[in-house]
Amino acid sequence: MTGPVGIISAGDMGAAIGAMLTSGGVDVATDLTGRSELTRTRAAEAGMRDAGSTDALVEECDLLLSVLPPAEAVPIAEEVAGAMARTGSRPAFAECNAIAPQTVVRIATLMLDTGAPFIDAGIIGSPPSPGSDTRIYCSGPDTSALESLRECGLDIRRVGPRFGQASGLKMVYAASTKGTTAVWTELLTAAEAMGLTDALLAEFGDAVDPARRIKATTQMPRRARRWVGEMEEIAATFEHLGLTPRILLGAADMFRLTGETALAEQTSREPDPELREMLRVLAEQARAGNQQG
Amino acid sequence: MTGPVGIISAGDMGAAIGAMLTSGGVDVATDLTGRSELTRTRAAEAGMRDAGSTDALVEECDLLLSVLPPAEAVPIAEEVAGAMARTGSRPAFAECNAIAPQTVVRIATLMLDTGAPFIDAGIIGSPPSPGSDTRIYCSGPDTSALESLRECGLDIRRVGPRFGQASGLKMVYAASTKGTTAVWTELLTAAEAMGLTDALLAEFGDAVDPARRIKATTQMPRRARRWVGEMEEIAATFEHLGLTPRILLGAADMFRLTGETALAEQTSREPDPELREMLRVLAEQARAGNQQG
Repeated sequence: MTGPVGIISAGDMGAAIGAMLTSGGVDVATDLTGRSELTRTRAAEAGMRDAGSTDALVEECDLLLSVLPPAEAVPIAEEVAGAMARTGSRPAFAECNAIAPQTVVRIATLMLDTGAPFIDAGIIGSPPSPGSDTRIYCSGPDTSALESLRECGLDIRRVGPRFGQASGLKMVYAASTKGTTAVWTELLTAAEAMGLTDALLAEFGDAVDPARRIKATTQMPRRARRWVGEMEEIAATFEHLGLTPRILLGAADMFRLTGETALAEQTSREPDPELREMLRVLAEQARAGNQQG
Repeated sequence: MTGPVGIISAGDMGAAIGAMLTSGGVDVATDLTGRSELTRTRAAEAGMRDAGSTDALVEECDLLLSVLPPAEAVPIAEEVAGAMARTGSRPAFAECNAIAPQTVVRIATLMLDTGAPFIDAGIIGSPPSPGSDTRIYCSGPDTSALESLRECGLDIRRVGPRFGQASGLKMVYAASTKGTTAVWTELLTAAEAMGLTDALLAEFGDAVDPARRIKATTQMPRRARRWVGEMEEIAATFEHLGLTPRILLGAADMFRLTGETALAEQTSREPDPELREMLRVLAEQARAGNQQG
C-alpha cells in the first residue's frame, strides 16, 4: 500500500492526479494556505486534504509531486528543501513540471544535497482521468516510489536512469505539438492580416494535415498564457544542446500575443473560438502592437 | 500566340518553367553570361536560347519572369530596370520569387516608375512538369501577360488585384510546410542529442501526423541552404504585420545548421538520408557549434 502523497499544487493537473490517487485509496495532501476558493473546491472534489503548511506536507508524506507552472518549479523546490531542513523529514521528491533538463538537474542536486530521493518526471497529455491516455514518464536511479502509483490507474513509464531524460522527453514532445501549433497560428494570422485566409484555405483544400493543424490552433487560446513559460523552457533546452532557441521563443511570443486578447479568458467549459473570429482578433492584436512599437 | 518570354534565371525552377513554355511553342530566352556549365546544359535541355545580355533579354521579350533565390530578387530587378532605361523596351516584369510582400511592393514601384507593367507571382510546389500540380499564383491590376502562359499547361491562378497578395500567399504557405519542417527537425535533433530518439518515436507510435512530419525532415537537407533566405523573407513578412519574426528566423537557423553539414551536399539524384544518420549529424553539428560559442 502506497503511503501518503503530497501534491504541490492542486491546479488542473495536480488535482486530477490527486483524484486518481484518492480513488485508489491513497491519502493525498496538499497545502491550501493562501489558495483561491477555486483551488480549495477542486482539492475537496479530488478528495485531497489540506496539510496546512509546506512543513506539514513534508512531514506527513512519503512522496511529493511538484506539479506547477514552469516558472514556479525552482522556488517551490527551494521552499520544500527548506521545509525538509527544518523538519528533518526526507520524502521522495518527484519533479513533474515542464522544465528544461538542465533545470531538473539543478533541482536534483538541491534535493540530493538535502538528502531526499529525487525523481525526474514529465507528464504528456491532458489532466488524467479514468481511461484517459495521459502518460507520466519518469527517470532517475530509483523511480519506484512514483512507479508504485500505477496501482491507482496512472500510466507511469520509466525512460531511463538519468535525471533529465523524462523532462527532456516532455520538452521535445511538447515542441512537436505546441511548437507546431505556434507556427500554424502565426501563419494563419498572417494570412488573415493580409486578407489571404480564403486563398490559403483553398490552397490547403481538404488535406487532412492542415485541417488537423488548424483545429489545434483554435484549441490553443485558453491555454496560451500557461504555454508561454513552457515554450521558454523548451527554448532553453534546445539552446543548451547548441540548437537555436528562436523557434520556441517565437512560439512563446505567439502564445503571449494570444494571451493579451480576450480569447485567453475563455474557460474549458466554453466552446473553442471559431477560426475566423480567432484570426481576426489575433491579427488586430498584432497590428495594434505594431503601431505602438 | 504568346510572344517571347525571358526567364531570369535558368535554375531548377526557371529551367522547368522554360521547358514547359518551349514545349508549348513559346520562344524562351535567358542570359547565360558567366553562368555555369550545369546551367547552360539545363537551359539547352529546356530549349531555352541565350540572349547574351540583360539588355538583349529586355529588348527581345514581351514578358520577363524573375525566378531566383530570394536574396537576388532586388539586385536583378534593379539590373533589369537599368536595362529598360538603356534600351527603351518595357516588357512586363513578373516577380516570381519567394520574397516578402513589402519587398515586392518596392520592386513594383521601381518597375512602374520605369514604365514597365508589373505582376506579383508566387510559385507553390516543385519545379513544374507535364502533369505536376505546381501552382503559380499571381496578383496585380493586370496579370493577363502571365495568365496567357496557361496555354502551355502551367497552372496559373489569379489571387487578386493587389501587389503582395500572390507573394503573401507564398509566404504563409511556405511557413506551413517549411516552418513546420524546421520545428520538427529541431525537436528530433534535440531528442537525438539527449539520447531520447527511441523514446520519442515510441511515444509517437504509429500516428500518421508524426510519420509525415518526420519524413519531411529527411527530405529537407539538400534544400536547406536554399531555404535559409526564404525563411528570412517569411520572418520579415510576419514582422511587418506585427507578428513575431523569431519562429521563422529560428527556422532559418535550423536550415543554416543543416547547410553547414555534409547532408546539404546531396543531390536530388541521391536518396534522402536515413533519419537516424541525419539526426546524428545534426546533433553533432549543434554540439560542435555550442562548444565554439
